[in-house]
Amino acid sequence: MVDGIERPLDVLNNSKGKEVLVQLKNNRQMVGTLLAFDIHINVVLDNAKEIADGENKRNLGLTFLRGDTIIFISPASMAK
Amino acid sequence: MVDGIERPLDVLNNSKGKEVLVQLKNNRQMVGTLLAFDIHINVVLDNAKEIADGENKRNLGLTFLRGDTIIFISPASMAK
Amino acid sequence: MVDGIERPLDVLNNSKGKEVLVQLKNNRQMVGTLLAFDIHINVVLDNAKEIADGENKRNLGLTFLRGDTIIFISPASMAK
Amino acid sequence: MVDGIERPLDVLNNSKGKEVLVQLKNNRQMVGTLLAFDIHINVVLDNAKEIADGENKRNLGLTFLRGDTIIFISPASMAK
Amino acid sequence: MVDGIERPLDVLNNSKGKEVLVQLKNNRQMVGTLLAFDIHINVVLDNAKEIADGENKRNLGLTFLRGDTIIFISPASMAK
Amino acid sequence: MVDGIERPLDVLNNSKGKEVLVQLKNNRQMVGTLLAFDIHINVVLDNAKEIADGENKRNLGLTFLRGDTIIFISPASMAK
Amino acid sequence: MVDGIERPLDVLNNSKGKEVLVQLKNNRQMVGTLLAFDIHINVVLDNAKEIADGENKRNLGLTFLRGDTIIFISPASMAK
Repeated sequence: MVDGIERPLDVLNNSKGKEVLVQLKNNRQMVGTLLAFDIHINVVLDNAKEIADGENKRNLGLTFLRGDTIIFISPASMAK
Repeated sequence: MVDGIERPLDVLNNSKGKEVLVQLKNNRQMVGTLLAFDIHINVVLDNAKEIADGENKRNLGLTFLRGDTIIFISPASMAK
Repeated sequence: MVDGIERPLDVLNNSKGKEVLVQLKNNRQMVGTLLAFDIHINVVLDNAKEIADGENKRNLGLTFLRGDTIIFISPASMAK
Repeated sequence: MVDGIERPLDVLNNSKGKEVLVQLKNNRQMVGTLLAFDIHINVVLDNAKEIADGENKRNLGLTFLRGDTIIFISPASMAK
Repeated sequence: MVDGIERPLDVLNNSKGKEVLVQLKNNRQMVGTLLAFDIHINVVLDNAKEIADGENKRNLGLTFLRGDTIIFISPASMAK
Repeated sequence: MVDGIERPLDVLNNSKGKEVLVQLKNNRQMVGTLLAFDIHINVVLDNAKEIADGENKRNLGLTFLRGDTIIFISPASMAK
Repeated sequence: MVDGIERPLDVLNNSKGKEVLVQLKNNRQMVGTLLAFDIHINVVLDNAKEIADGENKRNLGLTFLRGDTIIFISPASMAK
């Protein structure tokens, strides 16, 4: 499942069009479909949902996230 | 609805002239009409309103926001 | 009122010589006349007044503000 | 065991394909198999597990971690 | 009094040899005679005095201040 | 003992292969043998031990430390 | 006493071989003999002593300090 991951951004490239979990600083989390990213790790999610304490807090739809507030990005389908 | 989004800044470009929600660090939020942005994600909102705890806190009108205090920007019309 | 704003710094350029509200990190605010700014958003205010809890805290006069402590800058005449 | 470590990134290069412990700011920890890293210390872990208070908190699977939230990375097999 | 201020650093240049108030992050303040500054806003004060809660806390004499801890610099003679 | 220290990194170069104390932000400390460092002050320690409140908290073995979390590095043999 | 200070780093250059007080973020202080510095304000102190609440907390001897944790550096002989 991890073939072809030479550089960190390859994971983001492979996740385009798929649902990802984005952990932000200050305990914010978002899930959504990864549409785009750049080298600053600015990302765009579609159908973004903000989650707090395991509950859906806000439906944000299309959302631009600044890279410097991101801790990690995990393709949701990989979560076990 | 998300056609043509190749790079993160495309979302901001598509949102010019439209209302957006801007989440700032320290739990500040603003809504307003996106007039301009640059690669640092400095943005200009017109008719900016600062929101705290779901209530309108201040009407700021035309406002310049420094990029490094921004967590995310979401076109308000997309919020569900 | 927002004609001619192509880039975020255009708002600051249009505000030279006018009163602006500057929101700083850590809940500090200043109002004063915008005299100058640069690409780091370092700004100079004349007749700067520091405001806390809606009250005038200090009259600082001519003041140099470092850009990285600024959250937003709003031309005061636009506040409604 | 430490032969051939001339530069800090050599440790990460030697740890590819092995389990590592990643200490993040704000007391988060992750363990997982190091797949990739770059000069910003952005890293990709496979089978990533988030750990809090010595207990497994979340299984995240494949995960991209932004470098600026990382305090240290330690090959787990080295822990005594 | 503000003639000739085209760029923010002009204020600092005009203040050389004069007393300034320097507001630092974390509620520290210093007053002293501005001797030198650079583009990072690193500054040197002579006869620097650290002030807390309106009282003189420490006489530091000649002091080098790193720019990234500075919020604002105000020529003291301008304070009203 | 301090002959030949022209630049700050000379101290780190002279400390290669020796035990050092590394003070991290957030009150973390590590001791270990300095194997490598770079201009970002990323360092590699061998036999790294994390210390809290004067007690050995964790033996981490070989560890990569990101420079931006480091406050100071002191050759342990110099501590008096 | 302040002749020849054209740029901020001149103060550090004039202080080489002399005792300085270094104020760090998070209320840490160090005193020691300044041996070296660079443009990032990384400094090396000899006979460094960490001070908390006006008392000597630790004798660290030769110590490398990363610039980004430094608030100010003051030649101790100047303190009045």
